[in-house]
Amino acid sequence: MTYFDAASSLPLHPVAREALLAAFADGWADPARPHREGRRARMLLDAARETAAEAVGCRPDELTFTTSGTRALHTGIAGALAGRARVGRRLLVSAVEHSAVLHAAEAHQDAGGTVTEIGVDGGGRVEPGAVGAALGAGGEPAALVCVQSANHEVGTVQPVAEIADECRAAGVPLLVDAAQSLGWGAVPGDWSLLAGSAHKWGGPGGVGLLAVRKGTRFAPRPPVDERESGRAPGFENIPAIVAAAASLRAVRAAAAEEGARLRGLVDRIRARVPELVPDVAVVGDPVRRLPHVVTFSCLYVDGEALLHGLDRAGFAVSSGSSCTSSTLTPSHVLRAMGVLSEGNVRVSLPPGTGAEEVERFLTVLPGVVAEVRGRLGVSSGSTAPEVPAVVPTAEEVTVDSLGKLCPVPVIELARAIGRVPVGGVVTVLADDEAARLDIPAWCAMRGQEYLGEPRNHAYRVRRLA
Amino acid sequence: MTYFDAASSLPLHPVAREALLAAFADGWADPARPHREGRRARMLLDAARETAAEAVGCRPDELTFTTSGTRALHTGIAGALAGRARVGRRLLVSAVEHSAVLHAAEAHQDAGGTVTEIGVDGGGRVEPGAVGAALGAGGEPAALVCVQSANHEVGTVQPVAEIADECRAAGVPLLVDAAQSLGWGAVPGDWSLLAGSAHKWGGPGGVGLLAVRKGTRFAPRPPVDERESGRAPGFENIPAIVAAAASLRAVRAAAAEEGARLRGLVDRIRARVPELVPDVAVVGDPVRRLPHVVTFSCLYVDGEALLHGLDRAGFAVSSGSSCTSSTLTPSHVLRAMGVLSEGNVRVSLPPGTGAEEVERFLTVLPGVVAEVRGRLGVSSGSTAPEVPAVVPTAEEVTVDSLGKLCPVPVIELARAIGRVPVGGVVTVLADDEAARLDIPAWCAMRGQEYLGEPRNHAYRVRRLA
Repeated sequence: MTYFDAASSLPLHPVAREALLAAFADGWADPARPHREGRRARMLLDAARETAAEAVGCRPDELTFTTSGTRALHTGIAGALAGRARVGRRLLVSAVEHSAVLHAAEAHQDAGGTVTEIGVDGGGRVEPGAVGAALGAGGEPAALVCVQSANHEVGTVQPVAEIADECRAAGVPLLVDAAQSLGWGAVPGDWSLLAGSAHKWGGPGGVGLLAVRKGTRFAPRPPVDERESGRAPGFENIPAIVAAAASLRAVRAAAAEEGARLRGLVDRIRARVPELVPDVAVVGDPVRRLPHVVTFSCLYVDGEALLHGLDRAGFAVSSGSSCTSSTLTPSHVLRAMGVLSEGNVRVSLPPGTGAEEVERFLTVLPGVVAEVRGRLGVSSGSTAPEVPAVVPTAEEVTVDSLGKLCPVPVIELARAIGRVPVGGVVTVLADDEAARLDIPAWCAMRGQEYLGEPRNHAYRVRRLA
Repeated sequence: MTYFDAASSLPLHPVAREALLAAFADGWADPARPHREGRRARMLLDAARETAAEAVGCRPDELTFTTSGTRALHTGIAGALAGRARVGRRLLVSAVEHSAVLHAAEAHQDAGGTVTEIGVDGGGRVEPGAVGAALGAGGEPAALVCVQSANHEVGTVQPVAEIADECRAAGVPLLVDAAQSLGWGAVPGDWSLLAGSAHKWGGPGGVGLLAVRKGTRFAPRPPVDERESGRAPGFENIPAIVAAAASLRAVRAAAAEEGARLRGLVDRIRARVPELVPDVAVVGDPVRRLPHVVTFSCLYVDGEALLHGLDRAGFAVSSGSSCTSSTLTPSHVLRAMGVLSEGNVRVSLPPGTGAEEVERFLTVLPGVVAEVRGRLGVSSGSTAPEVPAVVPTAEEVTVDSLGKLCPVPVIELARAIGRVPVGGVVTVLADDEAARLDIPAWCAMRGQEYLGEPRNHAYRVRRLA
């Protein structure tokens, strides 16, 4: 099995494993106890905090260990919002944040707060100036801005340092979700809060980081206890914390070299996939991106079938297609970017990935895509389904794709477009949520004109070519 | 070092260690992913849930894994209260619950809820009928009752099955904090919610259990996600969960035999300590108790100095004395029981403790106590300081112990009592919080009459003997 889903989780780094085993011997006691075993555990905890703080770029007393990256985000957002509740209750989040941030934003809204979403460009990037503009736009005073350091689905790196400057200028704290990037380097800029997750860099599960820089107003939400400066209640998991800190230092030491190597492999995938597979869109910022992530979407492909096909062929990848999630809606990241969501594949290479594994993936992928397309009745070659050998029959055609799931509505649109002459219009009736994203994306890819959705679930497309 | 602080935390059980290492190989991936690595992780998680549910005595789909026992309690209490918010907002907790429960109760109160505390007897036991009486007493309708299965400081086992019946009769759910007892056996009775903590039974840190029986109204507090039935957001720590479940099964298999053995050792300590050390009170229910916990308090002893003395002598124990905590107040458990808090020592034996270790402790303890007493100017022999060779000088004497910390006010009271004749009164001025507990406790132990605290920080004692 070749594991290309590093952005979900990594196996335990050998350094983490070694540190964990050592810390099981020395760090299992309660660090709050004054006896020898407790003091030994406390010393390990303090040392791990120093190591992690150095990697994060903060002071040890600004750093607390939480039980997950999700918990760090929930605690950080709630604490920062509560700390500034007198100033204002508006939370600004980018549209492509991790679901943990969006869940915290929903909770804030449910509790009477306001949430402003900051859009991204087609590459998934928050445009510099967008946060400053949103902060200056008036309305309820802002309490907090949340922007990720890099996107978890498409790998796009955000201009965090610039955004931090915009936040400082407005006097609003910035919380950075650094879960995807912390193993590759410290987050630049003058951020106020930062969250991370150990299992994303090869540390054990069960450890998150929350940094709250001095001078940041912060009021932890009750119930709290005396652990971790009142910011993470419950018994500290010291062996896992020690392993997390040790492995962070280890992956950082190798990050420059390994990052450059993986970047080369990802460049190869970015270049070759569109050559090897017809009708593919590589998504995400092509330059300002994580070294190890590449995401692409395949027209006329069911993402779930593609995932299973790749799995059978020995590759573990991830997908933002609607059919692969429990919600039946496409990934909010792809939606915010306005790009094709069908047949979506995220390849995220773990450290140590070999060039031969990437080549094998490139060898296998075309066949798997062709097989999935074939099952949907789409020719697997370069001949897209939208070039049928029929004479146009009407100026306007309606296709009923109601009740059909992605990618079928797009396939039926592609088949119908040849039934109208150039200048003619196809209306697709489709109630699958993905259609709202994928029909415009198809138009952009195929050079047709998307006319909009005049009625709910009715999409109009003018044939231009 | 002999570790007698098992009730705080246990070193990793060999079975947990083995399971953890195996699960690091197979259970590091995201169980929500449909690829092979994800499915393998999911299978391990499902199997661990079945194992743990069997040990808890609930269905697997009633059990969720949290990141700590504290988190299980916080989540369980908040979710149960929210689930019944329409019925009522009154939370009933025993006065001797773990601080995690009391913190959750404070949070509930801060949010506008009501909290009723249920008292305990001198052994720390919730008296059968007390919960039923509190539920029937009228006032705001009750939303939830929280009672521990066994006390963490004195080992007293609570009549949970009877309390569960009282709760069922009143139609109010009962949440049981089973952190201290779960390794010894399933909690009996018809409880509605139950919380546990893996590192208390030799599992790894970072794993708690929350069982919510079907039919219990439960509304998890946002933010939530799709993990663990929406009850524990964030990436599941599967290796630790697997190790927790495996070690719970292992300790349970040995519980009857090991429990009987440790009970014998504790019996020995309970019997010998009062014989070996003058002026000691063994506290907690002498019969209905955990097999491995014994707690006693020593008159005229500074708990912190005692802890350090034992630590130097090679024994790690715990204490509920005020001077050993960061709050400068004695343990709320000892306070609720109305027993002496000074010189308090909790001995909690880990599985595998040998009889020779207990004998060594009994050999060492008298000398350590004598040394601490000696430093406080108290004779170490059987001659207590309250038998001075002076002729009573006045019917009424006032001792100024303001600004002096425990156990000094009690020592000064003991010295002063000989200065009044039988029938005379000593007034002690003391602003250390422990005096409020320890002066009445001293009176009970020495056969003197406690007259009360007519003014704040002024305690009156009549000499009877």
